[in-house]
Amino acid sequence: MKASRSISARALGPEGARDITRSLPEEVPVAITCNGTTQAVMMTSPADLEDFAIGFAMTEGFARLDQIERVEVMELAQGIEARLWIAEEAANALGARRRAMMGPVGCGLCGIDSLEQALRDLPPVTGRLALSLSEAAGAGDALRAHQPLHDLTHAVHAAGFFIPGQGIVMVREDVGRHNALDKLIGAALRAEIDPACGAVVITSRVSVEMVQKTVMFGSPILIAVSAPTAQALRSAEAAGLSVAAFGREGRLQVFTHPHRIQEDRSHVA
Amino acid sequence: MKASRSISARALGPEGARDITRSLPEEVPVAITCNGTTQAVMMTSPADLEDFAIGFAMTEGFARLDQIERVEVMELAQGIEARLWIAEEAANALGARRRAMMGPVGCGLCGIDSLEQALRDLPPVTGRLALSLSEAAGAGDALRAHQPLHDLTHAVHAAGFFIPGQGIVMVREDVGRHNALDKLIGAALRAEIDPACGAVVITSRVSVEMVQKTVMFGSPILIAVSAPTAQALRSAEAAGLSVAAFGREGRLQVFTHPHRIQEDRSHVA
Repeated sequence: MKASRSISARALGPEGARDITRSLPEEVPVAITCNGTTQAVMMTSPADLEDFAIGFAMTEGFARLDQIERVEVMELAQGIEARLWIAEEAANALGARRRAMMGPVGCGLCGIDSLEQALRDLPPVTGRLALSLSEAAGAGDALRAHQPLHDLTHAVHAAGFFIPGQGIVMVREDVGRHNALDKLIGAALRAEIDPACGAVVITSRVSVEMVQKTVMFGSPILIAVSAPTAQALRSAEAAGLSVAAFGREGRLQVFTHPHRIQEDRSHVA
Repeated sequence: MKASRSISARALGPEGARDITRSLPEEVPVAITCNGTTQAVMMTSPADLEDFAIGFAMTEGFARLDQIERVEVMELAQGIEARLWIAEEAANALGARRRAMMGPVGCGLCGIDSLEQALRDLPPVTGRLALSLSEAAGAGDALRAHQPLHDLTHAVHAAGFFIPGQGIVMVREDVGRHNALDKLIGAALRAEIDPACGAVVITSRVSVEMVQKTVMFGSPILIAVSAPTAQALRSAEAAGLSVAAFGREGRLQVFTHPHRIQEDRSHVA
């Protein structure tokens, strides 16, 4: 299935009306299943779905890459299933968590349990990576050079991985910002990239889920083109993640753990 | 709870580093419960939560306004519960739907059932509203004049209701685009605004859920500042909803059911 599609439209303006075509992003329901049980259904760009399933399993804490035995992507009439088959140990832990969450309300994401889970505790970030100001402030622009689906459609998010001295080494795109990040993380895990050696760079706002996923991945720096929420910054502060945003023209605003972004002497006049 | 918060940051640039403060949006887990059972948990801007619960119940098809007996918003330590108490008839239908969806996988949004539900059938849109090109093309700019939380934080979405001859009559804002739309719809229902008499205008992309919610509300036109997805347009085409986007400087692109946007003779030279 293609990630974009050519669509007809009627362009209206003061000079009259005409028929045009433009490329728009495709969007498909994707169910991620684990040993036959559905974990989540999300509207997703139909590309890099193995990366997506592996990244989602890792960032949502139900299976590490070394616990995943097989991934299958099946196109069905109603959408796509990304089927993970995971080791018995991880499957048992997932089953126990699911049963614990069922409770009297009968749903996997419910009541007080899920209000708590929405702001779940995160493992501490310990990476000693540091970026120069020019690297960190330029990372958003660097990412923009690697967004082919966005160039075509002007309507998808991207997440990239930036390594000092190498630039953006990997990018994934999606109609959903969480999905783009999960795809990037899955792809980086499969390529055996060390998450502690670089920064995650995203085109979107920093909501709390973007912090949670970056921390679960293990990268110590998250750089966004757009603004963070206050709750995302509380979560990042507690987990030890450096969050920076609004990088442009050699400038950057750093909101948490600023020691990982160094002043760039080459920029001082 | 306030919808924005003043946050300290370190601004770095070629001229050196300095401490700044900026206003960022707050984001809180909100659980919507129905007669004591949680339906969903979402990260939400903590404002207009009664509108949110009422709009969500309507657009997700589990209770109409006339079936809602009471709404309570409770701040808990872990987040906020928006509690709906609905009429027995609607509660019974919801319980039956929930049981039908449980199946062997034990979750409310699972497997084939939920792939199907992701692209659920929608009631047909029948409104005979028509907008002039200048009204439709200017609706996005008109909305921008009513976004106080965005003016403060530059990081939230808005959804507004536009009535010909009256302009934008109601706006709601949220960190999540779906939430902004559900809040608008809940507020409009409570104010007894006829959904067929105006257009929904949104600052975000048009994903399939934005189409579903607008159709459930009953407004015949959806105008977006940014791009639609291909799937959103298939859903809009099937339901009879007019979707337009990219309105600026008197121009607009109409993707589905273009008969509701008229050429504006006053603009012809």
